[in-house]
Amino acid sequence: MRLSRFFMPILKETPKEAEIVSHRLMLRAGMVRQQSAGIYTWLPLGKRVLDKVTRIIREEQNRAGAVELLMPTLQSAELWQESGRYDAYGDEMLRIKDRNKRDMLYGPTNEEMITDVFRSYVKSYKDLPLNLYHIQLKFRDERRPRFGTMRSREFLMKDAYSFDLNREGAVDSYNRMFAAYLRTFARLGLRAIPMRADTGPIGGDLSHEFIILADTGESEVFCHKHFLDFDIPADDTDFWDAAAMKAIFDKWTSLYAATSEMHDEAAFNAIDDASKVSARGIEVGHIFYFGTKYSEAMGAKVQGPDGKEHTVHMGSYGIGPTRLVPAIIEASHDENGIIWPASIAPFDAVVINMKSGDEACDAACETIYAALNNAGFDTLYDDKDDRAGTKFATADLIGVPVQIIAGPRSVANGEVELKDRKTGARETLTIEAAINKLTASK
Amino acid sequence: MRLSRFFMPILKETPKEAEIVSHRLMLRAGMVRQQSAGIYTWLPLGKRVLDKVTRIIREEQNRAGAVELLMPTLQSAELWQESGRYDAYGDEMLRIKDRNKRDMLYGPTNEEMITDVFRSYVKSYKDLPLNLYHIQLKFRDERRPRFGTMRSREFLMKDAYSFDLNREGAVDSYNRMFAAYLRTFARLGLRAIPMRADTGPIGGDLSHEFIILADTGESEVFCHKHFLDFDIPADDTDFWDAAAMKAIFDKWTSLYAATSEMHDEAAFNAIDDASKVSARGIEVGHIFYFGTKYSEAMGAKVQGPDGKEHTVHMGSYGIGPTRLVPAIIEASHDENGIIWPASIAPFDAVVINMKSGDEACDAACETIYAALNNAGFDTLYDDKDDRAGTKFATADLIGVPVQIIAGPRSVANGEVELKDRKTGARETLTIEAAINKLTASK
Repeated sequence: MRLSRFFMPILKETPKEAEIVSHRLMLRAGMVRQQSAGIYTWLPLGKRVLDKVTRIIREEQNRAGAVELLMPTLQSAELWQESGRYDAYGDEMLRIKDRNKRDMLYGPTNEEMITDVFRSYVKSYKDLPLNLYHIQLKFRDERRPRFGTMRSREFLMKDAYSFDLNREGAVDSYNRMFAAYLRTFARLGLRAIPMRADTGPIGGDLSHEFIILADTGESEVFCHKHFLDFDIPADDTDFWDAAAMKAIFDKWTSLYAATSEMHDEAAFNAIDDASKVSARGIEVGHIFYFGTKYSEAMGAKVQGPDGKEHTVHMGSYGIGPTRLVPAIIEASHDENGIIWPASIAPFDAVVINMKSGDEACDAACETIYAALNNAGFDTLYDDKDDRAGTKFATADLIGVPVQIIAGPRSVANGEVELKDRKTGARETLTIEAAINKLTASK
Repeated sequence: MRLSRFFMPILKETPKEAEIVSHRLMLRAGMVRQQSAGIYTWLPLGKRVLDKVTRIIREEQNRAGAVELLMPTLQSAELWQESGRYDAYGDEMLRIKDRNKRDMLYGPTNEEMITDVFRSYVKSYKDLPLNLYHIQLKFRDERRPRFGTMRSREFLMKDAYSFDLNREGAVDSYNRMFAAYLRTFARLGLRAIPMRADTGPIGGDLSHEFIILADTGESEVFCHKHFLDFDIPADDTDFWDAAAMKAIFDKWTSLYAATSEMHDEAAFNAIDDASKVSARGIEVGHIFYFGTKYSEAMGAKVQGPDGKEHTVHMGSYGIGPTRLVPAIIEASHDENGIIWPASIAPFDAVVINMKSGDEACDAACETIYAALNNAGFDTLYDDKDDRAGTKFATADLIGVPVQIIAGPRSVANGEVELKDRKTGARETLTIEAAINKLTASK
């Protein structure tokens, strides 16, 4: 992408309304724009990151056997009256009347609707286990939306819902999602630690939050240091091997980990001092097993192998991509801007032309840009007519992993500079060597 | 995908509420489910088609230089008061009050919001031309939603918005989208004919609808037969060559084409009889140039090369993916079901095991399924315990282009049958030859 044809409005001033670093950086880098309180446009740079995040989430959901569909944003009030949550949900639910004065709402979550989909089609245990997910906008009318897209009103959510014949099957399904989440966050460049959690308004008796550690995190968390080195389930993990899934779950819940809400001081103090981690954390995922709470109320039953009707056991599994993006920034930035993990960077590399209009610089940059694109490198080419200093600052701010810097002096020697955004390490290479080095790393 | 792990609820009965063939087939094939009047869940089979459609639209928007962002679904009423459309829009606009009693609405279109984004960042003609698009849900509270997702209330729309310094630039931008639309529909397996159109509530003085011919189309259209053979702009089309764009526009508007709304009997009668086409049509895209209608009202101005402020000229360009899917079915089906164009089929091929549980059949199917997947063939494997007749009917109904049929008799000879869904042509090949034939076609 040529920057001259892209739309990436960099702000020079740090916006005053932004209280946390991710919000400041997302505004400054032209990733998002607030349209109303807690309602954002994802500008092109932000959209690219959001798409890469959702792609990884989707791939791992599919790998774990979940099947994607797409439920609508607007729901009828009747469904929520069936479950009893229509009145219970309170002011966070955005209630709407359509032109025929029918009561609708903008879905804050989808337990009711997916249970309705399920009950209308699935009648036999033979069609279980089933896990259906979607990645869809939701709305929660927070009293005080803040922290940018970390806590917005309209937000994107991946929510999966599992259906099983009994508790045992449901726990297998829970373990599959537990393992999928470990893989998902690892691929996003995050170390997420599952912590036993309260089930809140979703209900149920088994629940984990996945928490990443970040100095600027919203809550205090406590865990054993060994979590930081645990192995992530491998690419060839067999998600249909229930024993393997249970082993992953058991290992990752074998040591102490708790949010302040669930903290047990005595249990934490039993850990040797060198292994105690007390830090700030950000919740990036939340999974629930809630048994028959919705299936009972809404009559979601299947015929079992015994010929009798059984109320299905359900779980739900959420990750918010529009929340993950700022969470990743909170965990990965420096004083100059964002430092993207390679897997979700908006571009793989940026070519910086220090003197656009200079024939030799232009030619070198075009050569590099074309070669990287041909090699499948998603490349931004800063071909604008700005000062070199401005371009360097922009490249650091937007956090693309590799910078290829072409100035008149180096280009005269047939050379360019490569800069690693994260470490700041620089090296000077011939143009050909630079291209080869990058494309070999792909 | 193994059918036993997929979720594809086939209906045996033809649903009574469906008035048109695409709606009937989408319900029967388990592509969509109505949740409320005009509000649908896209079930996994439908979601796959929808994703393939949006991917092609996105690729062609990007190729034509449009830049993707994502605006939210909910908008503040204030924006629409600025343009004067808040009161004008009528009952189709879904009006909402949030918990703070602020007037919001579910966006039926985005001219106001994109103009707001533009004016807050772009100040110079140097940043033009600019074309920003998104693929986002919209809501229009139709008095009588019907025809399934062809005319639903909550629907997906790709809408692009161009910004130029003057009319001349805006016409160049219009021509680029015109050419992009020709390519988009062709890649979707459709022959779409641009017809001069009314601008309606969007406004402006230049507008084309893209219409596909289908016997079951909603409106009467009239055009010259030569449109059916015109060349589509090639893959290497240079969208930044304004003369080339104008040549494409001129050619595709050189002959008579009109919807009944804009029909000119005398002009149509001037065509020789053999070249007259009078048929039913379905609108699948609509593009507008509307000058300064929104930029004037909302103060979207840039500094020109002359140092003065200029109100920008705008256009908008819409395609509805959730409408395109049924439109494609209307244009491509037979008495047994859907016939997908290969580019958007939910799967590239389906392997039909005529006797699941039979060791030889299972082994042959597994071999084929693995080989096709490895070759990048998106394959459905019907491994369920159903009768062969049911599996054949399902495969025809869901319209996957190629069927690979493995029964005990053929497998005993090391053979399988290939069936082309569209033509019905069948051939018997060794398992190896069948795999090679399909993978060579990829």
